[in-house]
Amino acid sequence: MMMGTDRVLGLLPLLVLAFLCESLYCKPNNDVRSLAEITREISGYRAIAQKIIHLAVQGEAQNRSYDRLAAFTDTVGNRISGSRNLEVAIKYMYSALIQDGLENVHLEQVKVPHWVRGQESAMMVLPRNHTMTILGLGSSVGTSSQGVEAEVLVVESFEELRSRASEAKGKIVVYNQPFVSYGETVAYRAYGASEAAKVGAVASLIRSITPVSINSPHTGWQDYQPGVPHIPTACITIEDAEMMARMARRGQKIVVRLRMGAQTLPDADSFNTVAEIVGSEHPEQVVLLSGHLDSWDVGQGAMDDGGGVAISWEALSLLRDLGLRPKRTIRMVLWTAEEQGGVGASQYFERHKGNISNFDLVMESDLGTFSPLGLQFSGTKQAEAVMQEVVKLLAPINTTALEEHGEGTDIELWMEAGVPGASLHTADEKYFWFHHTEGDTMTVQSPVEMNLCSALWAVVAYVVADLDDMLPR
Amino acid sequence: MMMGTDRVLGLLPLLVLAFLCESLYCKPNNDVRSLAEITREISGYRAIAQKIIHLAVQGEAQNRSYDRLAAFTDTVGNRISGSRNLEVAIKYMYSALIQDGLENVHLEQVKVPHWVRGQESAMMVLPRNHTMTILGLGSSVGTSSQGVEAEVLVVESFEELRSRASEAKGKIVVYNQPFVSYGETVAYRAYGASEAAKVGAVASLIRSITPVSINSPHTGWQDYQPGVPHIPTACITIEDAEMMARMARRGQKIVVRLRMGAQTLPDADSFNTVAEIVGSEHPEQVVLLSGHLDSWDVGQGAMDDGGGVAISWEALSLLRDLGLRPKRTIRMVLWTAEEQGGVGASQYFERHKGNISNFDLVMESDLGTFSPLGLQFSGTKQAEAVMQEVVKLLAPINTTALEEHGEGTDIELWMEAGVPGASLHTADEKYFWFHHTEGDTMTVQSPVEMNLCSALWAVVAYVVADLDDMLPR
Repeated sequence: MMMGTDRVLGLLPLLVLAFLCESLYCKPNNDVRSLAEITREISGYRAIAQKIIHLAVQGEAQNRSYDRLAAFTDTVGNRISGSRNLEVAIKYMYSALIQDGLENVHLEQVKVPHWVRGQESAMMVLPRNHTMTILGLGSSVGTSSQGVEAEVLVVESFEELRSRASEAKGKIVVYNQPFVSYGETVAYRAYGASEAAKVGAVASLIRSITPVSINSPHTGWQDYQPGVPHIPTACITIEDAEMMARMARRGQKIVVRLRMGAQTLPDADSFNTVAEIVGSEHPEQVVLLSGHLDSWDVGQGAMDDGGGVAISWEALSLLRDLGLRPKRTIRMVLWTAEEQGGVGASQYFERHKGNISNFDLVMESDLGTFSPLGLQFSGTKQAEAVMQEVVKLLAPINTTALEEHGEGTDIELWMEAGVPGASLHTADEKYFWFHHTEGDTMTVQSPVEMNLCSALWAVVAYVVADLDDMLPR
Repeated sequence: MMMGTDRVLGLLPLLVLAFLCESLYCKPNNDVRSLAEITREISGYRAIAQKIIHLAVQGEAQNRSYDRLAAFTDTVGNRISGSRNLEVAIKYMYSALIQDGLENVHLEQVKVPHWVRGQESAMMVLPRNHTMTILGLGSSVGTSSQGVEAEVLVVESFEELRSRASEAKGKIVVYNQPFVSYGETVAYRAYGASEAAKVGAVASLIRSITPVSINSPHTGWQDYQPGVPHIPTACITIEDAEMMARMARRGQKIVVRLRMGAQTLPDADSFNTVAEIVGSEHPEQVVLLSGHLDSWDVGQGAMDDGGGVAISWEALSLLRDLGLRPKRTIRMVLWTAEEQGGVGASQYFERHKGNISNFDLVMESDLGTFSPLGLQFSGTKQAEAVMQEVVKLLAPINTTALEEHGEGTDIELWMEAGVPGASLHTADEKYFWFHHTEGDTMTVQSPVEMNLCSALWAVVAYVVADLDDMLPR
């Protein structure tokens, strides 16, 4: 039944008030109420968060993520894209996840680069004989079997190389760039070879991208630019780069003989490794937890990114142990071929982006699992406000910091497409000491720190996956 | 002529007074006066100290010790006892000291051990293939050319080895002892082989003696005990020691194949290298400044002990530049074969100990030339009181700390025989990160820190050598 006009007119002042209220005053109040409600909802998870933390830090699961990672990396060793070790690692992890009783454990196929290092050596033959410790860079071509022997041109920057371009022809360019930050200085590793080739160099040797060295070379991916000759390229140690710079300043002629057996084989088959706790109410909606299973072909890949893998797995195990099944699905994806430029992550995005509206939050740990500080977050102000409440649940382990998201990662494509993203933030001051070196081993990892990271990871994933609403976009 | 009895008796009260004064009151007063006088005397050197400091830190000599050390180590490289490199180093330094216009530059012959490393490798073949980075230990025997392949017994201490002695026969003992301090933990490097041989082991691999590692092995001397079989022995990295310990705890069988081409050749001829500023009043009295010229056969030996060499040389140069000739002789001795157990220093002591009463102060720098803190001193309380006044002259560079002397060194024999001794004390927290590794290079050294060390070294040597009296013993 409809109302008569008089009654409507009689209600008019109220309707006007309601309109004004909705449009001018009450909406903010509604939002505030809504956030207040969410805040209340989230604070209701305090006891559960405390349970998860207790299990991970003092309970039955104490040190489990460390022990699992140690067993995995001690057994498999390092595992570069395309290698048999990476195949073994994926099989190992697939079996372990099934054995752990996780759900929907499966592999998703990915084509990955297959670069192999081969034998490599660098010998300074002038002004004196000195064997250098080097690591060839991923995607570099090799030398002939005799190697390349040439005089060295030492530069401190790309600018200096350009200003001395006429001196570079036929030489080995040695970059002795200072370490500013990884994000800035890694340009020398990534582009050093092509920039040197452009001015006629026959090879390039790049000071390792690290603030600290015990004569430690660091490997990593490098990018040849289109239309520029591919020349062999490797990282040398800070020590050798600085020594050659001193020799050059003294006017001494430096000659180096470089041999690299590196080659690129046809792309190989690999897999992203997936396991879930299926959501109880919205199984199609996903909170994604991740780390990458591949590593460089040195050390154990325990820090980069064994730690991220182990705490993501541990987060699922903790929730399973406590019988916690959230409304949404928590999906762990262990990326393959991250080190070759996020290859596994990018193919995963292509395959699953059609379902993007169901991706609630994408999470990644790939900067070490040291003592945790909190999260780096990317999302709208509204989503950030919700996450601020979520991290408050971590007060018992003092990891409530929520910072702005930093550099590019395996979850970047999702974040660029508007999905909220979170990365683990830890006390990672020493990360680049060990990054891509023979020193990336279990010795860098601490069971106590990994317990804390696992607790943080599990609490955030569970609570976000269990909230009444997905995070606002 | 003799005095009559009456006159003697008449003087009696005065004599008694004099005796009492001497024995009860006046002697302390004399001493106090004497220290007060010395204090006054030393404070008179303030302007000279300031001049030396200025020359070293801001003046013409700024960075000279660093530049000299860089040129020396970049040219010669490392220089182990018995090696051609050490011969080259001694010739280089002899010429450089003469060219620098120092006095009495000469070499004193020493017979030194001649151990050579040869090719070496260690491969874990069970539970998986893994190449270990090792450094054989000085004086170790080699293996046969096929190497030795055996199961591993991992222990955390000598106590554990003894309690598991029955398991050791035919095995390679791996020591995974924790790092407590160099002084304490180095016992595993020194005695690990003989302790393992006593219980039937065929080789020993010892976790490197360091608090920090980027998969960095550390070499060093080791001592076979008499009557115990000589078995090959090397240091492995913390990383590999910890990994094998984890594998052993899991009950995994570990097998390692070790190949070492090490051998000990007949003793070689070498030299202590000497230069002086001859004293103006008591040229036979000596303040001795020292560091050791030999190094291990890895890295550049820039820190151990290139820095000690360079600041001792620089101290003489600074005084020469300023035309400062002290009353006593300042003699620099650059020891040879320190790393083999203070061989050069001990032969020097035997040759010169007849003249010990003329040795005023013996000084040594062999724990790095980092940011200086002051001196470690060994001597009587009276001598210490004098040195307390001397280090006050270093207030302009804030290095006035005088601490008790620490561990055994190249000046130990003199100190044990009662000669006051002083060692440079610097902020050496990172010393053992680089000690006896490929990372002991110029990269560890800082010109600014070396300027300060040189200034301290020159001020102390000059002032002590120029005081009216030798230090009390």
